[in-house]
Amino acid sequence: MMTDRVRQILSWYAGENPGVVGNLARMLNTGTLAGTGKMVILPVDQGFEHGPVRSFAPNPPAYDPDYHFQLALDSGCNAYAAPLGFLEAGAVKFAGQIPLILKLNNSDTLGRHGLQPISAVTASVKDALRLGCSAIGYTIYPGSGERNEMYQELRELIREARECGLPTVLWAYPRGTGVPKEAEQGVDICGYAAQISAQLGAHVIKVKPPKDVFGQEEAKKAFEKANVPTKTMADRVKHVVQSAFAGKRIVIFSGGEAKGTAEILEEIKGIKDGGGSGSIMGRNAFQRPHDEAVKLLKDVMKIYAS
Amino acid sequence: MMTDRVRQILSWYAGENPGVVGNLARMLNTGTLAGTGKMVILPVDQGFEHGPVRSFAPNPPAYDPDYHFQLALDSGCNAYAAPLGFLEAGAVKFAGQIPLILKLNNSDTLGRHGLQPISAVTASVKDALRLGCSAIGYTIYPGSGERNEMYQELRELIREARECGLPTVLWAYPRGTGVPKEAEQGVDICGYAAQISAQLGAHVIKVKPPKDVFGQEEAKKAFEKANVPTKTMADRVKHVVQSAFAGKRIVIFSGGEAKGTAEILEEIKGIKDGGGSGSIMGRNAFQRPHDEAVKLLKDVMKIYAS
Amino acid sequence: MMTDRVRQILSWYAGENPGVVGNLARMLNTGTLAGTGKMVILPVDQGFEHGPVRSFAPNPPAYDPDYHFQLALDSGCNAYAAPLGFLEAGAVKFAGQIPLILKLNNSDTLGRHGLQPISAVTASVKDALRLGCSAIGYTIYPGSGERNEMYQELRELIREARECGLPTVLWAYPRGTGVPKEAEQGVDICGYAAQISAQLGAHVIKVKPPKDVFGQEEAKKAFEKANVPTKTMADRVKHVVQSAFAGKRIVIFSGGEAKGTAEILEEIKGIKDGGGSGSIMGRNAFQRPHDEAVKLLKDVMKIYAS
Amino acid sequence: MMTDRVRQILSWYAGENPGVVGNLARMLNTGTLAGTGKMVILPVDQGFEHGPVRSFAPNPPAYDPDYHFQLALDSGCNAYAAPLGFLEAGAVKFAGQIPLILKLNNSDTLGRHGLQPISAVTASVKDALRLGCSAIGYTIYPGSGERNEMYQELRELIREARECGLPTVLWAYPRGTGVPKEAEQGVDICGYAAQISAQLGAHVIKVKPPKDVFGQEEAKKAFEKANVPTKTMADRVKHVVQSAFAGKRIVIFSGGEAKGTAEILEEIKGIKDGGGSGSIMGRNAFQRPHDEAVKLLKDVMKIYAS
Amino acid sequence: MMTDRVRQILSWYAGENPGVVGNLARMLNTGTLAGTGKMVILPVDQGFEHGPVRSFAPNPPAYDPDYHFQLALDSGCNAYAAPLGFLEAGAVKFAGQIPLILKLNNSDTLGRHGLQPISAVTASVKDALRLGCSAIGYTIYPGSGERNEMYQELRELIREARECGLPTVLWAYPRGTGVPKEAEQGVDICGYAAQISAQLGAHVIKVKPPKDVFGQEEAKKAFEKANVPTKTMADRVKHVVQSAFAGKRIVIFSGGEAKGTAEILEEIKGIKDGGGSGSIMGRNAFQRPHDEAVKLLKDVMKIYAS
Repeated sequence: MMTDRVRQILSWYAGENPGVVGNLARMLNTGTLAGTGKMVILPVDQGFEHGPVRSFAPNPPAYDPDYHFQLALDSGCNAYAAPLGFLEAGAVKFAGQIPLILKLNNSDTLGRHGLQPISAVTASVKDALRLGCSAIGYTIYPGSGERNEMYQELRELIREARECGLPTVLWAYPRGTGVPKEAEQGVDICGYAAQISAQLGAHVIKVKPPKDVFGQEEAKKAFEKANVPTKTMADRVKHVVQSAFAGKRIVIFSGGEAKGTAEILEEIKGIKDGGGSGSIMGRNAFQRPHDEAVKLLKDVMKIYAS
Repeated sequence: MMTDRVRQILSWYAGENPGVVGNLARMLNTGTLAGTGKMVILPVDQGFEHGPVRSFAPNPPAYDPDYHFQLALDSGCNAYAAPLGFLEAGAVKFAGQIPLILKLNNSDTLGRHGLQPISAVTASVKDALRLGCSAIGYTIYPGSGERNEMYQELRELIREARECGLPTVLWAYPRGTGVPKEAEQGVDICGYAAQISAQLGAHVIKVKPPKDVFGQEEAKKAFEKANVPTKTMADRVKHVVQSAFAGKRIVIFSGGEAKGTAEILEEIKGIKDGGGSGSIMGRNAFQRPHDEAVKLLKDVMKIYAS
Repeated sequence: MMTDRVRQILSWYAGENPGVVGNLARMLNTGTLAGTGKMVILPVDQGFEHGPVRSFAPNPPAYDPDYHFQLALDSGCNAYAAPLGFLEAGAVKFAGQIPLILKLNNSDTLGRHGLQPISAVTASVKDALRLGCSAIGYTIYPGSGERNEMYQELRELIREARECGLPTVLWAYPRGTGVPKEAEQGVDICGYAAQISAQLGAHVIKVKPPKDVFGQEEAKKAFEKANVPTKTMADRVKHVVQSAFAGKRIVIFSGGEAKGTAEILEEIKGIKDGGGSGSIMGRNAFQRPHDEAVKLLKDVMKIYAS
Repeated sequence: MMTDRVRQILSWYAGENPGVVGNLARMLNTGTLAGTGKMVILPVDQGFEHGPVRSFAPNPPAYDPDYHFQLALDSGCNAYAAPLGFLEAGAVKFAGQIPLILKLNNSDTLGRHGLQPISAVTASVKDALRLGCSAIGYTIYPGSGERNEMYQELRELIREARECGLPTVLWAYPRGTGVPKEAEQGVDICGYAAQISAQLGAHVIKVKPPKDVFGQEEAKKAFEKANVPTKTMADRVKHVVQSAFAGKRIVIFSGGEAKGTAEILEEIKGIKDGGGSGSIMGRNAFQRPHDEAVKLLKDVMKIYAS
Repeated sequence: MMTDRVRQILSWYAGENPGVVGNLARMLNTGTLAGTGKMVILPVDQGFEHGPVRSFAPNPPAYDPDYHFQLALDSGCNAYAAPLGFLEAGAVKFAGQIPLILKLNNSDTLGRHGLQPISAVTASVKDALRLGCSAIGYTIYPGSGERNEMYQELRELIREARECGLPTVLWAYPRGTGVPKEAEQGVDICGYAAQISAQLGAHVIKVKPPKDVFGQEEAKKAFEKANVPTKTMADRVKHVVQSAFAGKRIVIFSGGEAKGTAEILEEIKGIKDGGGSGSIMGRNAFQRPHDEAVKLLKDVMKIYAS
């Protein structure tokens, strides 16, 4: 059951305790992609982050917390990630059926808008243990003036989670005064976010699919000087993965805004070809009717498994 | 194996506990320069500080954390310094093979730009113990409006590290509203930074190679009045070393921006002639191909050993 | 050995614990002035406060931390005061030979310029114990917009130091938006600073020698109305000493900027005649060649002892 | 420098943090046996355990704490183990020159005689860090009525030491009402002690050389039924090593009471042939004159290296 | 003022912080024996330990706490040691005049008689700081069944005192079921007590003058085998001092029961000739009339100074 590829991935985390390594193994060995070293995770924090109607009105059954546990199971995801309330609501009913990732911090669009974003810590490592989770999740906004506070908060949460045998999944979204709005998904910015995440000690890194734009002039020059190609998604993903310790950290990519199926699958193919470890796909999944969502997720997994 | 010179250096730290003294000894007695009282340290925090593409694209194997441990070993460095993630990624594989310095605070160019720089504390003294490190590292920006916060944060970290037998290596980079941009490497500014570092209790002080410019009018007058020469690198290094308690603290110099080999070796010669304790050389090492980097580092060591 | 005068001075501090009283006694009973109730203290924080070249280039042996311990011993000072690094560097070598005062906060001229000065806390009461000190030192800038922060920080440090048997020596330098630059040493301002220091609970108060100028119009009127003379140094020192609880707190005066010997001794005579408890003399001592400095300090002590 | 054999040994400790693994590596890579996977450790706790005259009168220079640091260095030992006082007395002088093991608990023959022996905890993990040690040491007496207290005390010390990156060396001496006096070194008893030690989480296990006697009737039967040979020292050591997780823990053997050189070397050969990891040899070393001791230790190492 | 002998003694404590070293220096550099490396300490805990009438009725002024401070001063002792109450009663009046040692644990003859003696901890390290003490004192009874509790309590107190810059003076009185009553002062027992004290980390060790009897059969054999002479006091003291790390710890001897002057001086001469560091003399001092006591103490000091 333990494949050579998963063994290889776990070897990158030598020095971590068996609890942390075991939870990484549990996520890698669950679902349709079990053993392939690839992961597709269902994240549902949009109710908190964007509000319920924007998130769930397109597919009303998704207002129900149980819906997402079931969707993750039906589609064979490796894990399901959500804020405290969503996990608490279904964690007993689905206990032991799928690895859970508790997102410890969250932001809403009602408060603290603007240039120096920082999320609120809305759950604890102890909550993650209580709910039987396999990992904690945290979001940083490199580029925000509150960067230092986030990095320092994260440092303590990683430490506490590790002592409890839990790895950390880090959502890295460059945003704030330090990053031009139009370049938040710039290939250099995504690569930099992946590097920072790895340096901060994240076990699984989640960034947005990189675009062929640049956020930092000096970085652009470095790409050009070294002839690093950035034309295709595969090219750019390759850079991001390389930026995560030469690929020695698990890097997964968000699906981003809802879009058409063909476009999604095309993007996934690029991620796969660039060496990405997988996807974390929320709105594109749960805003579709259940069966369509399951089909999409299975098609995505098929690409990763190929 | 313990030379008179190393004994003499350790005597400057009388009153420190045997753990702190022992870790200083370990660094001084490792690698090609073991026993000479000189040190060459490989630091690799540029992935965090400047971003991955600017740092590693010139020599892509350097994206891999293992690369730097191996480079430090191959070239006979006294120690290897890096942020949390880079050390975690290789610390078991290279356990016990080379002294490690965990850089506890780090900054990136995505966030908190501007005139009052301060780095985020991204790792802890407990991390340093867990990873088997021989010292902690910390960066101060004298000249920043956040100076007091940094000095006070440092005070607590030095205290905690000492109780655990770990010495502190201090990166002192004058920067911010208090220092004219063009004089950040001014000979008076570098000397002042070395003095502040020593007064704050640093065990090893790292400054930039001083230039023949001045940042403070009153300091310039003092140089002139006392006829302190500043024309050559050796002259200027001599002042900086003197400013670090008449040379009774270990002072090492950064290599700064990547440049040509001849220029580097010329600079090293000046540092050596001025009485500097050694170099901490990052970009000039890891951005070269492996064998060139090893050769350069060995040539640098040859100068210090001469 | 315990003289009536010292007994009288200690009686002002009745209610303090024996540790605090004992350390005051230790300082009063050390050196040439032992038992006279007068004190001459060597302070060397200028390396931190003004930078090394301005401080030590006039007398290069003073770059060496050992130099100042030895100078204080050779000249028979009551105590030696310095920041953390300088004390750490010599505290074992000179252990038990002279009372030490650890300056807990310090400022440099590289950062945080401007109108609202506040020093960084660069050492702790625990450091003072570890280094075997007899007192802590702290600097306040009455007149600064950061005044409250300093007073409150000081309050906690005095409390902690007292619990450990350590008295507090307070440097009181009116400075900031609340005090006209030219009146920082005004007789009313110095007296006010002495009063604030005493009210804050300082055991030993250090102010600058008062000048015959005024910083506050209303204070000036009060001097005139009550016919308080301010023409001579003795007159003005008398007011400052009176402002420190009718002389029931030890008040010592800084030497200020380097100047000629005759001028210094004239000033000391004024302080002595006005009832000052002594001097804390840094630059005028350590910037002279060793033997001249010893002679000057001994001449100063002779005046106080007369 | 890192040999395949040492790599293999360290692989048994996967899941431990890099600090623990690094300190094991440091001990395995020090001295004459560096890299062989074998260890010879000098332990000097007999002054505490048996009293000074019995321990040091045979070779009076051994009263001096420095003597043992030097002996360990001169003979090329992998590490030196002693109680707090002996390490404190020389830890600065020999800082960084040889791995130190701080014995955290000790017993003397003046008190608490009798059937339920238990040692006093005379030093802490924090002491080990302060003194720059590479491991802690602890003694258990399986067979004592105080067994539970010891096991539980040990549990907490191993946990605290691990968090600080320190491995634990366990002295396992079956003794007390549960073990017949004459069978304290019985092959079954020694094997059982090794197993308990490994189960308690010890990283390095120290037992006495097993004799061809049995302490438990049922164990004797099991040996006979399975035809486990116990005639030679090699046979018996093989059983003890196997009992320590099929040899996946480092097991070293004490020298026991002082005896003749030939007898010692014969015993070492048996340990080596049985697969033991090495020796921890105190009285047989430090009670001989210095040069004889060095020669003996080197001869012992020669056997292990062969 | 700092003599070579005192420097040498302080060098034995390298690795201790400057506060600890400074307080040792303070005791060694106080009183008549200042600078000689010898110490005479006045201890007055007999009021607590034996009751007031037995202690003070022979010389009723000694009921007054002030009496003992004054006696220590008048006779030129290096320090005065007493329980909490006695020190509190005079510590302000005599503040800063003589080094004080606060005895942290004490026993009375009203309670816990019997075979397993252990003293109560009646004061704290914080009390020692509050009272301005230069050291803490603690009593162990090796040989008691409560040995482990005492050693462990002591371990924590030494640690806490060290962090506050205070050394530890250890009273080591073998007593209890493990030591034959008649051999409590046996030469082997006293040597063993000195060794245990040093191994436990005591800075100054106080034992009783050894007698030419033996408490342990095996120890007696070791003396005989090694031809260690024990006939004269000097012989026996030499063994005890050697047992304290070859003389690298300060060892002082109690005066024991009250006795005649000639007998006392004879004993002191033996201690001096055997290399003892001095005496701690209570009853033989304070139970004599003041002037006789001063004379006796001065005569004792004369012997040590000769």
